[in-house]
Amino acid sequence: MTERLQVYYKIRSDASSIEERARGIAIEQSIEAPLAAIRDPRVLSDIVGEVAAIEDQGGGWFGVRIDLASATVGEDAGQLLNMLFGNSSLYDDVVLDDAVLPAALLRAFGGPRHGAEGLFARAQAEGRALTCSALKPQGLPVEQLADLAFKLALGGLDYIKDDHGLANQSFSPFEDRVRACAAAVRKAAALTGRRIRYVPNLCGDLGQIERQIGVARSEGVDTAMIAPMIAGVSTLQALRQAHPEFAFIAHPAMTGAARVSPYLFARLYRLFGADASIFPNPGGRFGFSQACCGRIVEALCGPLDGLRASLPVPAGGMTLQRVPELLDYYGRRAMLLIGGALLSAPPETLVKETAAFVRAVSEHSYK
Amino acid sequence: MTERLQVYYKIRSDASSIEERARGIAIEQSIEAPLAAIRDPRVLSDIVGEVAAIEDQGGGWFGVRIDLASATVGEDAGQLLNMLFGNSSLYDDVVLDDAVLPAALLRAFGGPRHGAEGLFARAQAEGRALTCSALKPQGLPVEQLADLAFKLALGGLDYIKDDHGLANQSFSPFEDRVRACAAAVRKAAALTGRRIRYVPNLCGDLGQIERQIGVARSEGVDTAMIAPMIAGVSTLQALRQAHPEFAFIAHPAMTGAARVSPYLFARLYRLFGADASIFPNPGGRFGFSQACCGRIVEALCGPLDGLRASLPVPAGGMTLQRVPELLDYYGRRAMLLIGGALLSAPPETLVKETAAFVRAVSEHSYK
Repeated sequence: MTERLQVYYKIRSDASSIEERARGIAIEQSIEAPLAAIRDPRVLSDIVGEVAAIEDQGGGWFGVRIDLASATVGEDAGQLLNMLFGNSSLYDDVVLDDAVLPAALLRAFGGPRHGAEGLFARAQAEGRALTCSALKPQGLPVEQLADLAFKLALGGLDYIKDDHGLANQSFSPFEDRVRACAAAVRKAAALTGRRIRYVPNLCGDLGQIERQIGVARSEGVDTAMIAPMIAGVSTLQALRQAHPEFAFIAHPAMTGAARVSPYLFARLYRLFGADASIFPNPGGRFGFSQACCGRIVEALCGPLDGLRASLPVPAGGMTLQRVPELLDYYGRRAMLLIGGALLSAPPETLVKETAAFVRAVSEHSYK
Repeated sequence: MTERLQVYYKIRSDASSIEERARGIAIEQSIEAPLAAIRDPRVLSDIVGEVAAIEDQGGGWFGVRIDLASATVGEDAGQLLNMLFGNSSLYDDVVLDDAVLPAALLRAFGGPRHGAEGLFARAQAEGRALTCSALKPQGLPVEQLADLAFKLALGGLDYIKDDHGLANQSFSPFEDRVRACAAAVRKAAALTGRRIRYVPNLCGDLGQIERQIGVARSEGVDTAMIAPMIAGVSTLQALRQAHPEFAFIAHPAMTGAARVSPYLFARLYRLFGADASIFPNPGGRFGFSQACCGRIVEALCGPLDGLRASLPVPAGGMTLQRVPELLDYYGRRAMLLIGGALLSAPPETLVKETAAFVRAVSEHSYK
C-alpha cells in the first residue's frame, strides 16, 4: 500500500446509486479512464482512488472518503488541487469537504515560514491580538491611498493592507502605490516611534509578482497579500520558496465557499506557506457560520505534523463595536481586520477611530 | 460614464430583498466598502458597481446585471476574475453566469494567437474535424506512456495530449515524459509520413512552466495544454505573450461548473489566449446539457470583436460509436477527444481502433 491522501466529499445522490457515484469519483480523481483501460497492475493497486467510507448524512447527501495516492501530487500545489477536485468540480452535486494529508506531503510543502508567531514577533506584540485595516476603495488615486495609510498608521495599527481589489490599475499602479504607501507609513513611524507594516496586494503572473516583491522589498516591506485562487496556488508555493524573509497573508477571493469548504482552503493555504489567512467572520457580509469559522481556526492553528500555525484573520464587515466579542471568541491568537467600518469615519476623526480600535484590542481582558 | 463590463449573476433571494442583495453585490465586486466611506466623487460615479437590471427568473432565482468599471481590471486576467467573482464566490447563493466585455478590454487581452484556424492549418486538415486522444492513466511509467503515444500516432490522430492528471510526478517526470513521448510520435511519423502533435500538460508555477516549454520546444513540440484555474489565468496570459509560436489548449479542471457558467469560462479562456478549449460533452461522465454546450461553442467561436475563434474540444467519456452524432452536432469546426474508450481496446488492436476513429471523422458526411 502506497501513501494516500484521505479526501472527503459530500455527494448528493440516491442511496441506491451512491456506491457507483463514489467509485466514479474515485476514478475521475485518479486515473480518469475506465478500469478496463488499466493494464498495469501497479497502477491498479497503487494509483486508482479507493472508496474508503460512505456515510448517509441525511437529506439526500452522503459523506464519502476517497483515498488517493500521494505520488500523484508530485509536490506541486496546483496538482494537489487538481487531485482533490479538478474534474469533480464540474459535477454540480459534489462538494469537496476536507482532506487529510500524509506527513511526507506536509513536509514537502513545508507550511508557513513565519506563521502566527512570526507575525506577532514582527509586530512586537505580546499578550494581545493584532490589528489590521485595509486601504480602499479601488479607484482612489495613489496620493489619497497614501494619505489613508498615513492616518491609519498614526492610529497605531500593526498591519495596513491593500484592499484585495487594488491590483495594478491605471488609477493606482502597483509600483507608485507601494512606494507612496510605504513612505506614508514610514513618515507616521517617524512621528510615533512605532513601526507599522504596510502589506501590498500581489497580482498578475509570477514574473510580475517577482517584480512587485522587488519593489516592495526596496521600500522596506516584508509582508504581502496574495489571493492564491486568483494568482494560482503554485504561485504562493513558489513565493514561499524564493522569498524566505517575506510573510504572506492569504486572501479568500475565488475560493467558492459553496463548493469547497473554507476550512480546507484554510489548511491548504497554510500548507502552501500562508503565514496568515483572511476569512469572513459570522455576522458580517458573508454567511459563514460560527461552526465553520471554528473549523477554519482549527485548520490554521491545530496540530499539523509540526508545521507552523497560520494566523487567523477574521474579517468581512467587522466593526469596532464587535471587538470585545471577537476577542472573546478568537482570543489573542488572531489579527482583527476592520476595513470599511473604520474608513466610514469622517477623515478628521479617522486617526482617533483607529486608535480606539487599537486600544480596544490592547486593553481587552483576554480570557 | 466610463467604460463598463456587464456582468450577469444569478442570485437566490426573496423578491422583497433582491434589490438590496443586488446593490450589495455591486459594492462587494467593486469598492468593497460602505458607500459612506467613499468621499471621492469620481469613485462614486466611475468605480462603484451599478445594478443595471434585475429579472425574476422564477423558483426563487433572479438574474442580475451589474456593470463594473473596465479600469478596475488593469488588463490582468486574474484581476478580471477577481472583479467578476472574487468575494462573491463566497456567497453560496450567487452564481456567476456571464459577462460582456468592452472592446478595449478584448483587444488588451487579445485572444488566441492561432485559434481554431491555426490548429487546422498545423494539422493540414481540410473539410473535416480534428481528432485527439489522451495519454493515461497517471501512474504509468514513461516508457508505457511513450508506447501508447507511438500506437495512437500510428493510428493517425491529429493531436495526442497528456491526460490532465499527468503533472511532474516521480512515476513520469515532465522532462523524461515529454522527451520520450515526443520521440515516440516522431518515430511514428517517420513510418507513416504524417506529422502528429504531442501536447504535454503544463503544471506548476510560471517559472517551472517556462522550463517545461523550453523542454517541449527542444523536442519540436508547438502545442501545450494548461488548466488555467489550476495554474492561474494570468499564467496563461503570460504564456500567450511570451511564446507566440505555441498554441495552448485549455483544460476545464477546477472551473466549478455549478458556480461559474462553463460558457463564461470558455469565453474567458479564449480571451486570455486559449487556441482550443476542452469541455464535457452531454451524455458522457458529466452533466452538461446540450444547451450549455451550444453556449460554450458560441463563446468559443462566435463573434468577439475580431478575436480569433478557439476550437471546441468536446470530451469527457466520448466513444467511437458517438462520432457521427458528435460531428452532426459540432460540424467540421471541432476536435473530437476520445481518451479512455480508445485505451480500453486491447493493446494489440489499439492502432486499428484509433485508425477507425480517424476514418470515421475523415469520411463523415458533414452537413
